[in-house]
Amino acid sequence: MKLLLLSMGLALVCGLQPECSRSEEDLSDEKERKWEQLSRHWHTVVLASSDRSLIEEEGPFRNFIQNITVESGNLNGFFLTRKNGQCIPLYLTAFKTEEARQFKLNYYGTNDVYYGSSKPNEYAKFIFYNYHDGKVNVVANLFGRTPNLSNEIKKRFEEDFMNRGFRRENILDISEVDHC
Amino acid sequence: MKLLLLSMGLALVCGLQPECSRSEEDLSDEKERKWEQLSRHWHTVVLASSDRSLIEEEGPFRNFIQNITVESGNLNGFFLTRKNGQCIPLYLTAFKTEEARQFKLNYYGTNDVYYGSSKPNEYAKFIFYNYHDGKVNVVANLFGRTPNLSNEIKKRFEEDFMNRGFRRENILDISEVDHC
Repeated sequence: MKLLLLSMGLALVCGLQPECSRSEEDLSDEKERKWEQLSRHWHTVVLASSDRSLIEEEGPFRNFIQNITVESGNLNGFFLTRKNGQCIPLYLTAFKTEEARQFKLNYYGTNDVYYGSSKPNEYAKFIFYNYHDGKVNVVANLFGRTPNLSNEIKKRFEEDFMNRGFRRENILDISEVDHC
Repeated sequence: MKLLLLSMGLALVCGLQPECSRSEEDLSDEKERKWEQLSRHWHTVVLASSDRSLIEEEGPFRNFIQNITVESGNLNGFFLTRKNGQCIPLYLTAFKTEEARQFKLNYYGTNDVYYGSSKPNEYAKFIFYNYHDGKVNVVANLFGRTPNLSNEIKKRFEEDFMNRGFRRENILDISEVDHC
């Protein structure tokens, strides 16, 4: 009888122990479900860049997120952007990589994209390292579930960017601006 | 008797279920122990940069790793570097951040440092995004547990870097070079 109980216990325990029984696919499914929380509607609240022209009017990174959908771990972003005074849709896909939170995006050259957020139901931070014509620039996007975010979140985003040695004028709060 | 067994089973199961009983410190201890695998002896095998001068003779990022120690999740790197023809020690500390695999380093301006490796007993890849005088540069370091690495690993590192639009001459294999 003891043996039975022990084996039952072990089976129970092993059944719950992630490494024991969960196949590679289960674990990667779990990772993909984790990214689901990023989907649905978003607003671009603040943009910041080492090169201000990238995020100014008609700049390649002055794009207004509308929503994100997640497909096998890749992030599909639907943006609106203004080109020659016209509002046009822009669809970008950031492909997952071997490393968690890191994606690859082919747009205006190539980009390493890193995601970070401690409150995905409230805000999401996407840092783009853009490689274009042999040059490197950083573009930081602060997205909110609402058109604006608390001053506390915006201030932390700003400080984090200025700690990299950039000036405040390279940070554009576009929460009140006409988003196309 | 049944109740006893059940509670024993639950205690056993709960004891193994990470979320059940493990406090915040336990989980962060576990994260820190994960970084322990990065400690001990390393060799710099390949350096690559968007700005080649940063990794050429006397360049600020032409540093030869000797070893890494891990302290409360921060990475202490001991390097040798050549300044004015002299070999001198260089100690750098990359401080952990809220995000896994991402560290902050104050050296030649400020740096976001990202770690990535699928075989930490064999090689480690550290990508530095360096911010200096308002400019951004990327410096990629390929460390090996041995003075040289397989062509397969070096080729993947090279391709990964060139996929960002940089030229081969911005990649320096220093496995055969005199490391101070």
